[in-house]
Amino acid sequence: MSDAHREMWERLNLDLTAHDGLLEVLGKFYGDIYMSQDNRLKGMEYMDFVLSEVHGLRIKELQEAKAQGRKVVGTFCVFVPEELTLAADAVQVGLCAGAEAGSDLAEELVPRNTCALIKSFIGFKLARLCPYLESSDLVVGETTCDGKKKAYEAFADHAPLYVMEVPQTKSVSARELWRDEVLRYMAQVEKLTGVTITAERLRTAIKTVNDRRRALQRLTALRSADPAPISGRDALLINQISFYDDPHRFTYKINELCDELELRVQAGQGVAPVGTPRLMLSGCPMAVPNWKLPYVIESSGAVIVGEESCIGTRNTRDLVDESGETVAEMVDALVDRYMKIDCACFTPNTDRQDNVASMAQTLKADGVINYSLMFCQPYAHEAMKLEHFLEGTVPTMSLETDYSMEDVEQLKTRIEAFVEMVS
Amino acid sequence: MSDAHREMWERLNLDLTAHDGLLEVLGKFYGDIYMSQDNRLKGMEYMDFVLSEVHGLRIKELQEAKAQGRKVVGTFCVFVPEELTLAADAVQVGLCAGAEAGSDLAEELVPRNTCALIKSFIGFKLARLCPYLESSDLVVGETTCDGKKKAYEAFADHAPLYVMEVPQTKSVSARELWRDEVLRYMAQVEKLTGVTITAERLRTAIKTVNDRRRALQRLTALRSADPAPISGRDALLINQISFYDDPHRFTYKINELCDELELRVQAGQGVAPVGTPRLMLSGCPMAVPNWKLPYVIESSGAVIVGEESCIGTRNTRDLVDESGETVAEMVDALVDRYMKIDCACFTPNTDRQDNVASMAQTLKADGVINYSLMFCQPYAHEAMKLEHFLEGTVPTMSLETDYSMEDVEQLKTRIEAFVEMVS
Ligand code: SF4
Ligand code: SF4
Ligand code: SF4
Ligand code: SF4
Repeated sequence: MSDAHREMWERLNLDLTAHDGLLEVLGKFYGDIYMSQDNRLKGMEYMDFVLSEVHGLRIKELQEAKAQGRKVVGTFCVFVPEELTLAADAVQVGLCAGAEAGSDLAEELVPRNTCALIKSFIGFKLARLCPYLESSDLVVGETTCDGKKKAYEAFADHAPLYVMEVPQTKSVSARELWRDEVLRYMAQVEKLTGVTITAERLRTAIKTVNDRRRALQRLTALRSADPAPISGRDALLINQISFYDDPHRFTYKINELCDELELRVQAGQGVAPVGTPRLMLSGCPMAVPNWKLPYVIESSGAVIVGEESCIGTRNTRDLVDESGETVAEMVDALVDRYMKIDCACFTPNTDRQDNVASMAQTLKADGVINYSLMFCQPYAHEAMKLEHFLEGTVPTMSLETDYSMEDVEQLKTRIEAFVEMVS
Repeated sequence: MSDAHREMWERLNLDLTAHDGLLEVLGKFYGDIYMSQDNRLKGMEYMDFVLSEVHGLRIKELQEAKAQGRKVVGTFCVFVPEELTLAADAVQVGLCAGAEAGSDLAEELVPRNTCALIKSFIGFKLARLCPYLESSDLVVGETTCDGKKKAYEAFADHAPLYVMEVPQTKSVSARELWRDEVLRYMAQVEKLTGVTITAERLRTAIKTVNDRRRALQRLTALRSADPAPISGRDALLINQISFYDDPHRFTYKINELCDELELRVQAGQGVAPVGTPRLMLSGCPMAVPNWKLPYVIESSGAVIVGEESCIGTRNTRDLVDESGETVAEMVDALVDRYMKIDCACFTPNTDRQDNVASMAQTLKADGVINYSLMFCQPYAHEAMKLEHFLEGTVPTMSLETDYSMEDVEQLKTRIEAFVEMVS
């Protein structure tokens, strides 16, 4: 890494030694999991580059934006309406973390029985490892699961935290509450940036985020081809990067990659032979660099054709209606769109069952793997329900894991048996 | 038990053999923990009787009420407004369960990483052990913690379930949501019973529930005396029975018991010598027959002087304002009162810290024991916060346990050390 990067990290108050260690492990892990793949798309070169500069050039861009007076908003959940952030001329980045580094420190702030994702973002803060978090002028939490809701209380002592209340049902009253919260966030981000959100600005922002969703929807649709034209690892990486990269550049690059994919599909080419068992992942989000399970699955003779998660289709499936003329109309369109999110934190959440089933069918999945992080109660409950629901339509298995590498062999054994079963 | 009871249980479709086993264990456990106490109040005879007939005479009363056309509403949380249930001429009973029986069956419906309380009520249903649940015409759940919120979805296949949305913050919008939910419940219970809730009926019901709260407040206040006039076990039992017994009879009996307590306090008499370390419990509710921790504590040279939990002061601290004239005014008073509940499911929930601190002071507690059920995330988070908050004012320790007896020795060791420390 360049000296300029190191200086920047020092200014961001990162723990340089620990951070060097993290980047080294990350680089090696990435090499093993990503660079070893055959028949990779040319378009993935951009992703390799972005990932290699994920703490470098992209952070530099954020610093430059900040130097020009723009603000950075960090988030942990797809419920935070990026359209409002962009309309207020701020940059939004995801802060979910997918590595074990710092998790022991995290246990000083949150209980041991907390999911790895939460421990990771808290650990990254306490161990001073995340330049995105350190660049954030506002960190937006939400009352989704108990784990995050309560963790934010402790986290608030360490970051400029603002919490949105996400309701727990989809009743008319719950939508009202959510609308109030969307408006409250709008006022908050306007205050942060000093920018008033006009209809013009909001319309543009809605278009920007929808365009990114449309590009990712295009990617999802292309994955229904057999042979699978892209690996699940690469598709996951793309979804992960969508939370960090500049939205315009990213959308352009994804559409370029989809052009390449289309040619592949037309030519009947893929990353694995026709007939390779096609699996779909469903459940908790997999944050960078949590690539363990996809790697184990794709090293077990299967290919992943879809990710039903917030770092996947749950974040891209629904567009915001673009016909609103006034700010109020557009806000209503935002509220409606966000209320469609089928997070396990809602009760009931039967839409998710239907969405998983129809996704499995469209993508011609031979099996569904329910993935829950250990101690994540909402997704563990839904995994049990999904197994029942999908019975007789598509084989399903449920796995619980975390970010450690200790269970890799055990996972491999179970996944190989499942792949065998669905073949 | 009488044959009439057995016939009743059979009609309620209980598993008679398993139920016999449960009652036997319960009787023995009660004998060891309760009947062995010295200097017990005469007023506790009523509680002994009620407990001995908890699946007998009280269930018979419920059946008689049902035969007269009244309905029974079962609940799991102090957020369900009993005032509305009573105003609609229904009977409300608590369904939280405090025994391990059936927990293995429960793991077929809910994840292993679920708190003992949830596993217990699900296990009691699947193993057909709870005559209260089987007597309930309506079972009211709520979206408090993730564990319950998601468990109700699976439970709905086994019980006539209705779910109230409890908000997660105390904002103005959250109160609006809660008000809508209170009104929705009112309509639901009116539909169930066919009784229209008039101002007259609601006023009477508010008075009934407030009177019970006032009697229990009187009990709480008397426990500030040194020597402690009543054991923590007995006080917990009283709070537990408050969820099952007829409210008028119970209130009368508690006031009678408080008269006896007053004489004791005047005479300087108690259940333990002056100077016995006084501990306060704080945290998750302890449902019948979860008496393990109080027993261990009171067998370790300390006396418990207060329970900061929903089976304790969290349920009795706040009264409903009685000045409302119209149904709408009284509903608003209900909404305000229930929004004061300082459950760990709220964020932030700083009122609870203040409430614990002031309670410890009023009751002259020498120490506070934070009690969380294993896998209960909201209270585990707050235990960490409370330890910090109380630092320097009163010694605090945090314990995590469940309903098994396996950790009794380990708990005893830790508690004895704590008692030693605060002596
Ligand atoms: S899974 Fe739920 S809580 Fe997590 S990012 Fe998605 S919507 Fe938010
Ligand atoms: S994985 Fe589960 S417990 Fe963890 S943050 Fe997401 S919803 Fe919460
Ligand atoms: S602790 Fe919270 S969820 Fe449990 S009974 Fe009390 S208010 Fe309800
Ligand atoms: S003890 Fe905790 S996890 Fe269990 S039901 Fe109560 S709030 Fe939920």
